[in-house]
Amino acid sequence: MAPLISGRIRHSVVFRLKHGEGSASEADFLRAAGALGSIPGVEAFELMREVSPKNDYRYALTMEFADRPAYDAYNAHADHVAFVQARWLPEVEAFLELDSEAL
Amino acid sequence: MAPLISGRIRHSVVFRLKHGEGSASEADFLRAAGALGSIPGVEAFELMREVSPKNDYRYALTMEFADRPAYDAYNAHADHVAFVQARWLPEVEAFLELDSEAL
Repeated sequence: MAPLISGRIRHSVVFRLKHGEGSASEADFLRAAGALGSIPGVEAFELMREVSPKNDYRYALTMEFADRPAYDAYNAHADHVAFVQARWLPEVEAFLELDSEAL
Repeated sequence: MAPLISGRIRHSVVFRLKHGEGSASEADFLRAAGALGSIPGVEAFELMREVSPKNDYRYALTMEFADRPAYDAYNAHADHVAFVQARWLPEVEAFLELDSEAL
Protein backbone atom coordinates (compact mmCIF):
# COMPACT_ATOMS: atom_id res chain seq x y z
CA MET A 1 0.00 0.00 0.00
CA ALA A 2 1.55 3.27 -1.10
CA PRO A 3 1.86 5.65 1.85
CA LEU A 4 -0.45 8.64 1.95
CA ILE A 5 1.16 11.83 0.71
CA SER A 6 0.37 14.98 2.67
CA GLY A 7 -2.95 16.44 1.59
CA ARG A 8 -4.38 13.14 0.38
CA ILE A 9 -7.25 11.53 2.27
CA ARG A 10 -7.91 7.82 2.66
CA HIS A 11 -11.61 7.30 3.29
CA SER A 12 -12.70 3.95 4.71
CA VAL A 13 -16.06 2.56 5.74
CA VAL A 14 -16.52 -0.74 7.53
CA PHE A 15 -20.06 -2.10 7.51
CA ARG A 16 -22.44 -4.96 8.06
CA LEU A 17 -25.45 -5.65 5.84
CA LYS A 18 -28.98 -6.62 6.78
CA HIS A 19 -28.78 -9.33 4.11
CA GLY A 20 -27.74 -12.88 4.88
CA GLU A 21 -24.18 -13.82 4.03
CA GLY A 22 -24.01 -15.43 0.62
CA SER A 23 -27.47 -14.15 -0.36
CA ALA A 24 -28.36 -12.72 -3.76
CA SER A 25 -29.28 -9.44 -2.07
CA GLU A 26 -25.81 -9.23 -0.56
CA ALA A 27 -24.18 -9.89 -3.93
CA ASP A 28 -26.33 -7.24 -5.55
CA PHE A 29 -25.43 -4.69 -2.89
CA LEU A 30 -21.73 -5.41 -3.23
CA ARG A 31 -21.96 -5.01 -7.01
CA ALA A 32 -23.65 -1.63 -6.55
CA ALA A 33 -21.07 -0.58 -3.95
CA GLY A 34 -18.28 -1.53 -6.34
CA ALA A 35 -19.61 1.02 -8.83
CA LEU A 36 -18.67 3.81 -6.40
CA GLY A 37 -15.12 3.28 -7.58
CA SER A 38 -16.08 4.75 -10.96
CA ILE A 39 -17.15 8.12 -9.54
CA PRO A 40 -14.72 10.86 -10.62
CA GLY A 41 -11.99 11.63 -8.10
CA VAL A 42 -12.10 8.20 -6.45
CA GLU A 43 -8.64 6.57 -6.42
CA ALA A 44 -7.30 3.31 -5.06
CA PHE A 45 -10.79 1.93 -4.58
CA GLU A 46 -11.07 -1.37 -2.74
CA LEU A 47 -14.06 -3.37 -1.54
CA MET A 48 -12.84 -6.00 0.94
CA ARG A 49 -13.96 -8.57 3.41
CA GLU A 50 -13.58 -7.54 7.07
CA VAL A 51 -12.30 -10.57 8.98
CA SER A 52 -11.25 -9.42 12.44
CA PRO A 53 -12.99 -11.28 15.27
CA LYS A 54 -12.63 -8.06 17.30
CA ASN A 55 -15.43 -6.17 15.56
CA ASP A 56 -18.86 -6.95 14.12
CA TYR A 57 -18.39 -5.52 10.61
CA ARG A 58 -18.19 -7.80 7.57
CA TYR A 59 -17.02 -5.60 4.70
CA ALA A 60 -14.69 -2.67 4.21
CA LEU A 61 -14.59 -0.01 1.53
CA THR A 62 -11.46 2.08 1.07
CA MET A 63 -10.75 4.85 -1.39
CA GLU A 64 -8.37 7.78 -1.64
CA PHE A 65 -8.84 11.37 -2.72
CA ALA A 66 -6.15 13.74 -3.93
CA ASP A 67 -7.45 16.49 -1.67
CA ARG A 68 -10.49 17.76 0.24
CA PRO A 69 -12.23 19.26 -2.82
CA ALA A 70 -12.06 15.86 -4.56
CA TYR A 71 -13.58 14.24 -1.48
CA ASP A 72 -16.32 16.87 -1.27
CA ALA A 73 -17.11 16.42 -4.97
CA TYR A 74 -17.49 12.67 -4.42
CA ASN A 75 -19.83 13.18 -1.49
CA ALA A 76 -21.98 15.54 -3.55
CA HIS A 77 -21.88 13.48 -6.77
CA ALA A 78 -25.33 12.36 -7.92
CA ASP A 79 -24.28 8.70 -8.17
CA HIS A 80 -22.99 8.73 -4.57
CA VAL A 81 -26.05 10.53 -3.23
CA ALA A 82 -28.35 8.10 -5.06
CA PHE A 83 -26.41 5.09 -3.74
CA VAL A 84 -26.64 6.34 -0.16
CA GLN A 85 -30.38 6.93 -0.38
CA ALA A 86 -31.41 3.90 -2.44
CA ARG A 87 -29.00 1.25 -1.16
CA TRP A 88 -26.84 2.25 1.81
CA LEU A 89 -29.47 3.57 4.21
CA PRO A 90 -32.02 0.77 3.67
CA GLU A 91 -29.59 -2.16 3.41
CA VAL A 92 -26.73 -1.43 5.83
CA GLU A 93 -27.24 -2.52 9.42
CA ALA A 94 -24.20 -0.85 11.00
CA PHE A 95 -21.15 1.05 9.80
CA LEU A 96 -18.24 3.24 10.82
CA GLU A 97 -16.52 5.85 8.68
CA LEU A 98 -12.82 6.61 8.96
CA ASP A 99 -10.72 9.29 7.24
CA SER A 100 -6.97 9.14 7.48
CA GLU A 101 -4.38 11.74 6.57
CA ALA A 102 -0.61 11.71 6.79
CA LEU A 103 0.78 12.77 10.16
CA MET B 1 -2.71 2.24 -2.39
CA ALA B 2 -1.92 -1.09 -4.02
CA PRO B 3 -4.92 -3.41 -3.85
CA LEU B 4 -4.75 -6.35 -1.49
CA ILE B 5 -3.80 -9.58 -3.20
CA SER B 6 -5.68 -12.70 -2.10
CA GLY B 7 -4.14 -14.11 1.06
CA ARG B 8 -2.69 -10.82 2.24
CA ILE B 9 -4.11 -9.11 5.32
CA ARG B 10 -4.36 -5.39 5.95
CA HIS B 11 -4.43 -4.79 9.69
CA SER B 12 -5.62 -1.40 10.93
CA VAL B 13 -6.13 0.07 14.36
CA VAL B 14 -7.78 3.41 15.02
CA PHE B 15 -7.21 4.83 18.47
CA ARG B 16 -7.39 7.75 20.87
CA LEU B 17 -4.73 8.42 23.52
CA LYS B 18 -5.13 9.47 27.13
CA HIS B 19 -2.47 12.13 26.50
CA GLY B 20 -3.32 15.67 25.52
CA GLU B 21 -3.00 16.55 21.86
CA GLY B 22 0.40 18.07 21.17
CA SER B 23 1.84 16.82 24.48
CA ALA B 24 5.31 15.34 24.90
CA SER B 25 3.71 12.11 26.09
CA GLU B 26 1.71 11.87 22.90
CA ALA B 27 4.81 12.46 20.77
CA ASP B 28 6.68 9.81 22.73
CA PHE B 29 3.88 7.29 22.25
CA LEU B 30 3.69 7.95 18.53
CA ARG B 31 7.44 7.48 18.23
CA ALA B 32 7.18 4.13 20.02
CA ALA B 33 4.23 3.09 17.86
CA GLY B 34 6.22 3.94 14.76
CA ALA B 35 8.82 1.38 15.77
CA LEU B 36 6.24 -1.39 15.23
CA GLY B 37 6.92 -0.94 11.54
CA SER B 38 10.36 -2.46 12.04
CA ILE B 39 9.06 -5.78 13.35
CA PRO B 40 9.73 -8.58 10.84
CA GLY B 41 6.83 -9.33 8.51
CA VAL B 42 5.27 -5.88 8.78
CA GLU B 43 4.78 -4.31 5.35
CA ALA B 44 3.28 -1.05 4.14
CA PHE B 45 3.31 0.41 7.65
CA GLU B 46 1.60 3.75 8.14
CA LEU B 47 0.88 5.83 11.22
CA MET B 48 -1.69 8.47 10.32
CA ARG B 49 -3.96 11.12 11.72
CA GLU B 50 -7.64 10.15 11.91
CA VAL B 51 -9.66 13.19 10.87
CA SER B 52 -13.26 12.08 10.34
CA PRO B 53 -15.79 14.02 12.44
CA LYS B 54 -17.89 10.83 12.43
CA ASN B 55 -15.79 8.97 15.00
CA ASP B 56 -13.85 9.78 18.16
CA TYR B 57 -10.47 8.28 17.22
CA ARG B 58 -7.47 10.49 16.55
CA TYR B 59 -4.83 8.21 15.02
CA ALA B 60 -4.74 5.25 12.69
CA LEU B 61 -2.12 2.53 12.26
CA THR B 62 -2.17 0.39 9.13
CA MET B 63 0.12 -2.45 8.12
CA GLU B 64 -0.01 -5.42 5.80
CA PHE B 65 1.06 -9.03 6.16
CA ALA B 66 1.82 -11.46 3.37
CA ASP B 67 -0.27 -14.14 5.04
CA ARG B 68 -1.74 -15.32 8.34
CA PRO B 69 1.52 -16.85 9.66
CA ALA B 70 3.28 -13.50 9.18
CA TYR B 71 0.45 -11.79 11.09
CA ASP B 72 0.61 -14.37 13.89
CA ALA B 73 4.39 -13.99 14.13
CA TYR B 74 3.97 -10.22 14.49
CA ASN B 75 1.40 -10.63 17.25
CA ALA B 76 3.72 -12.99 19.12
CA HIS B 77 6.91 -11.00 18.52
CA ALA B 78 8.56 -9.84 21.75
CA ASP B 79 8.71 -6.21 20.59
CA HIS B 80 4.98 -6.20 19.85
CA VAL B 81 4.06 -7.91 23.10
CA ALA B 82 6.24 -5.48 25.06
CA PHE B 83 4.72 -2.49 23.29
CA VAL B 84 1.17 -3.65 24.05
CA GLN B 85 1.93 -4.19 27.72
CA ALA B 86 4.17 -1.19 28.39
CA ARG B 87 2.59 1.44 26.15
CA TRP B 88 -0.67 0.47 24.47
CA LEU B 89 -2.68 -0.76 27.43
CA PRO B 90 -1.74 2.06 29.83
CA GLU B 91 -1.78 4.95 27.33
CA VAL B 92 -4.61 4.22 24.87
CA GLU B 93 -8.07 5.40 25.88
CA ALA B 94 -10.10 3.71 23.12
CA PHE B 95 -9.39 1.73 19.97
CA LEU B 96 -10.86 -0.48 17.27
CA GLU B 97 -9.03 -3.18 15.31
CA LEU B 98 -9.86 -3.99 11.70
CA ASP B 99 -8.50 -6.72 9.44
CA SER B 100 -9.27 -6.63 5.75
CA GLU B 101 -8.79 -9.29 3.10
CA ALA B 102 -9.55 -9.31 -0.61
CA LEU B 103 -13.11 -10.33 -1.47
